[in-house]
Amino acid sequence: MAADPDIITDFVVPPELVKGGIDGNFFTFTGMRSLVGEEPSSTFKVSKVGITEFPALNGQSVSYAVLQYPAGTTNPPHIHPRSTELLLVLEGALDVGFIDTTNKLFTQSLQAGDIFVFPKGLVHFQYNSDPQNFALAISAFGSANAGTVSLPNTLFATGVDDNVLAISFKTDAATIQKLKAGLAPKA
Amino acid sequence: MAADPDIITDFVVPPELVKGGIDGNFFTFTGMRSLVGEEPSSTFKVSKVGITEFPALNGQSVSYAVLQYPAGTTNPPHIHPRSTELLLVLEGALDVGFIDTTNKLFTQSLQAGDIFVFPKGLVHFQYNSDPQNFALAISAFGSANAGTVSLPNTLFATGVDDNVLAISFKTDAATIQKLKAGLAPKA
Amino acid sequence: MAADPDIITDFVVPPELVKGGIDGNFFTFTGMRSLVGEEPSSTFKVSKVGITEFPALNGQSVSYAVLQYPAGTTNPPHIHPRSTELLLVLEGALDVGFIDTTNKLFTQSLQAGDIFVFPKGLVHFQYNSDPQNFALAISAFGSANAGTVSLPNTLFATGVDDNVLAISFKTDAATIQKLKAGLAPKA
Amino acid sequence: MAADPDIITDFVVPPELVKGGIDGNFFTFTGMRSLVGEEPSSTFKVSKVGITEFPALNGQSVSYAVLQYPAGTTNPPHIHPRSTELLLVLEGALDVGFIDTTNKLFTQSLQAGDIFVFPKGLVHFQYNSDPQNFALAISAFGSANAGTVSLPNTLFATGVDDNVLAISFKTDAATIQKLKAGLAPKA
Amino acid sequence: MAADPDIITDFVVPPELVKGGIDGNFFTFTGMRSLVGEEPSSTFKVSKVGITEFPALNGQSVSYAVLQYPAGTTNPPHIHPRSTELLLVLEGALDVGFIDTTNKLFTQSLQAGDIFVFPKGLVHFQYNSDPQNFALAISAFGSANAGTVSLPNTLFATGVDDNVLAISFKTDAATIQKLKAGLAPKA
Amino acid sequence: MAADPDIITDFVVPPELVKGGIDGNFFTFTGMRSLVGEEPSSTFKVSKVGITEFPALNGQSVSYAVLQYPAGTTNPPHIHPRSTELLLVLEGALDVGFIDTTNKLFTQSLQAGDIFVFPKGLVHFQYNSDPQNFALAISAFGSANAGTVSLPNTLFATGVDDNVLAISFKTDAATIQKLKAGLAPKA
Repeated sequence: MAADPDIITDFVVPPELVKGGIDGNFFTFTGMRSLVGEEPSSTFKVSKVGITEFPALNGQSVSYAVLQYPAGTTNPPHIHPRSTELLLVLEGALDVGFIDTTNKLFTQSLQAGDIFVFPKGLVHFQYNSDPQNFALAISAFGSANAGTVSLPNTLFATGVDDNVLAISFKTDAATIQKLKAGLAPKA
Repeated sequence: MAADPDIITDFVVPPELVKGGIDGNFFTFTGMRSLVGEEPSSTFKVSKVGITEFPALNGQSVSYAVLQYPAGTTNPPHIHPRSTELLLVLEGALDVGFIDTTNKLFTQSLQAGDIFVFPKGLVHFQYNSDPQNFALAISAFGSANAGTVSLPNTLFATGVDDNVLAISFKTDAATIQKLKAGLAPKA
Repeated sequence: MAADPDIITDFVVPPELVKGGIDGNFFTFTGMRSLVGEEPSSTFKVSKVGITEFPALNGQSVSYAVLQYPAGTTNPPHIHPRSTELLLVLEGALDVGFIDTTNKLFTQSLQAGDIFVFPKGLVHFQYNSDPQNFALAISAFGSANAGTVSLPNTLFATGVDDNVLAISFKTDAATIQKLKAGLAPKA
Repeated sequence: MAADPDIITDFVVPPELVKGGIDGNFFTFTGMRSLVGEEPSSTFKVSKVGITEFPALNGQSVSYAVLQYPAGTTNPPHIHPRSTELLLVLEGALDVGFIDTTNKLFTQSLQAGDIFVFPKGLVHFQYNSDPQNFALAISAFGSANAGTVSLPNTLFATGVDDNVLAISFKTDAATIQKLKAGLAPKA
Repeated sequence: MAADPDIITDFVVPPELVKGGIDGNFFTFTGMRSLVGEEPSSTFKVSKVGITEFPALNGQSVSYAVLQYPAGTTNPPHIHPRSTELLLVLEGALDVGFIDTTNKLFTQSLQAGDIFVFPKGLVHFQYNSDPQNFALAISAFGSANAGTVSLPNTLFATGVDDNVLAISFKTDAATIQKLKAGLAPKA
Repeated sequence: MAADPDIITDFVVPPELVKGGIDGNFFTFTGMRSLVGEEPSSTFKVSKVGITEFPALNGQSVSYAVLQYPAGTTNPPHIHPRSTELLLVLEGALDVGFIDTTNKLFTQSLQAGDIFVFPKGLVHFQYNSDPQNFALAISAFGSANAGTVSLPNTLFATGVDDNVLAISFKTDAATIQKLKAGLAPKA
């Protein structure tokens, strides 16, 4: 169930845990240890630390994601329906951007140590344009469950009618089918 | 400025109006009269009644839009970053859908009198698939300024880099350029 | 249970429905179809589409009501404790008003296509003063469960003590009893 | 302007005060000292301590009122559009009640030391039915500006049309005019 | 579970009570009757009336506490994580203070009838410096469950490591152990 | 002024900037670049990235802090009145803890890659107990202006009366004065 802001207890203990029985482990997430000194991902990869992965975040209105960008990869255009994203580049460089509701594009080239804010509910993307170097970033969200709508898949890999897409994107059915084929899950 | 929920006055009067000077007209919006008995639009058209058009909505957390769909037109895939949309078909029929954050598509065929809910922040669309008949709908929003991110334009008509788009949509630059050309504003 | 603003899931599925099992029908309300082309009500009638009638509205902070006003009828003075009301006249004409917390009355005569805002928690009413023509309106609310406190019944048909009412309304017990008799449910 | 919940500063200093210049006096309200050992009011009287009387409450979501009830007086049926009321009887006894949105009346006879909750946005009243003894109460509100809609005056002393009221209260114009006359401000 | 602001029902009835079965008693708290005319406490004592003691406060965003200060006692420095406190001195006099997040101390000497606001989440205290007279106060909170973090006990009677405390308070382990001994529960 | 949750625009541009004039730089914070490859701090140091340092965070409900812990240093017991803290250890190891409102202490020993949640408004601390190695962490907050109440300074370096402190901490004035001397700013 479902209310991000303002709980009226210190924290929320899942019903299956007896309240008296929890200790510091309940408030600890160790699933990111593997990122330290590990071989980086060979494809773009997001590792979320939200309410699903870390139940102690319930009612606390904050979460993280770790993002790995091999050379030349993107985090495709997407939105988070329930939160702003505050991205910090830990390693490498990223080209980033978002588009506001007046259709104005805001872009930036970020280096390690830079922070960029993607306002709540707007389309945004990141791109590691460097042909050789890996980039690593961490993002904070002001919700325990920010949610992600990845636009290429949402639009072209969920079965939306070809006509709707062709008319909407002012193109022909063949182009829509080509896009759908490219984004279809591999067998 | 900017806070939708919970004002601590009955209503918010813009600074340029002397408070004692307002009357019932301040709370009235007459800009939709023209829709009654008027010639319907020949292209898909959204007429918003939000905080910009109707300043009395400031702090009241609700707004409207009227939507006109000539035969065969769509309201392209889009999101409202700040509100759920509750659509009521007044005339004609509409095929509608939205995609949730697990990439599940929900669709429906609506007739006059039907109401459909598009949950906050999710991608959704409407399509008047009837080759001959006009459709008319009204939508209510739980924000005075729901905002709209129209995805075809946001993605392909705001200057996002071709490389970012080609990699993200797993296609080639030629396809991206074709989509951009189709969506570019006409000279 | 009970929290209107800000859920941290896309939508709320009632426990008795298996989540995977829902489809577009869950997000569709067809109970208003009968209003299209149907014989209008012969008494003032409100048809609500809120969380009770349409469970998919849970957590979405928006709802509708359809209001039918035969000639000469009123929607008696009332308040919605949890939402502003945004009324759109679809047919006919209405005299409307609300009173703010400084006891100032705001009134307006509305025609078809007009929209009027009744701010949250204030006493308001509508009146079809036309002796012959029917009026039809739709209202949007910024809550899934706006609630209604109809003042004539609340004050005079729920058993509030005659003394309390006579002193409060600065009148005599006979007048209170007459009002109570007029508003008592018919046997 | 206007947002009760959640400020992002410790407190809000009015623009006309230089921030560094405030001291403990800004957070102190001395206007109730006169209630201590003073002659009680000879009519029902509410003394509010809200954002208007005590600007330091801005953004703090809490306020008080002190209520004095000479023998046989009522606090007439009213609502607070922006808050629950939590009433504590300090002296004497009170008959209290509220009506929920299903038109159920809840009543209680309170003695000194008793606390009663009037839920947000519902019609409620208090009555000192004792023919001889004074009663004194304090109420807390979960808003800095709860607002009050006093129903006798709102309905019958603000100029609402006689027809609207007669039809709504299912009575005749003469009864409405009599109620209006009783509640009209004295010359 | 657990969200203070904005319920979408009139009130919240605990699952173990059948809704139809509640009456005015559910909304009444009689546990403070004993304070009227009773022998005052011989030590500093807080009597809370929050969601735990009075379940009808669930979702109503308001609560009370009654505070008794024998001569020379303090309410030690503490914070309420979920609410502002609005204190009203009913009897006697109090020296009060709070410290904001810029480390500025605000103090005041209050007499009976005075009201003081302790902003949300800040450290504050009260002191009855009078060597002979008792003081009595009531406090209102804008949450049904304000919570209390009493700093002497939180810091020195919960088992925090001596080293952490000595380094943090820039003192030696002996001083920390002395403070811990003084605050340890008596056998 | 001043409301963290839910703005009704995409973002908030300060009045002194013409809206059309902002670009991607407005959404970028470069002040952390110096942390990359820089000599670590020789004392415990917090570098905040909140609304003060980065105005684009206004209305976005999220912020960061970077924390540097030389060997043997602590981040003294403190609270954030407006947010939960989600700490990620980037380098080294930390002993951490918080105390809930029932006075239960929760502790943990964290290594690089671990995440720990300090719930909103509760007292918490971190300690680099390693005698030789530096530790580095980043924290995310679910508010643009979380605020910090550092307890040693708040209690003993802001001028709170010795008597209040001695009685509250159940110790003598000499101990209080010793603590105050240790925490007083150096001349």
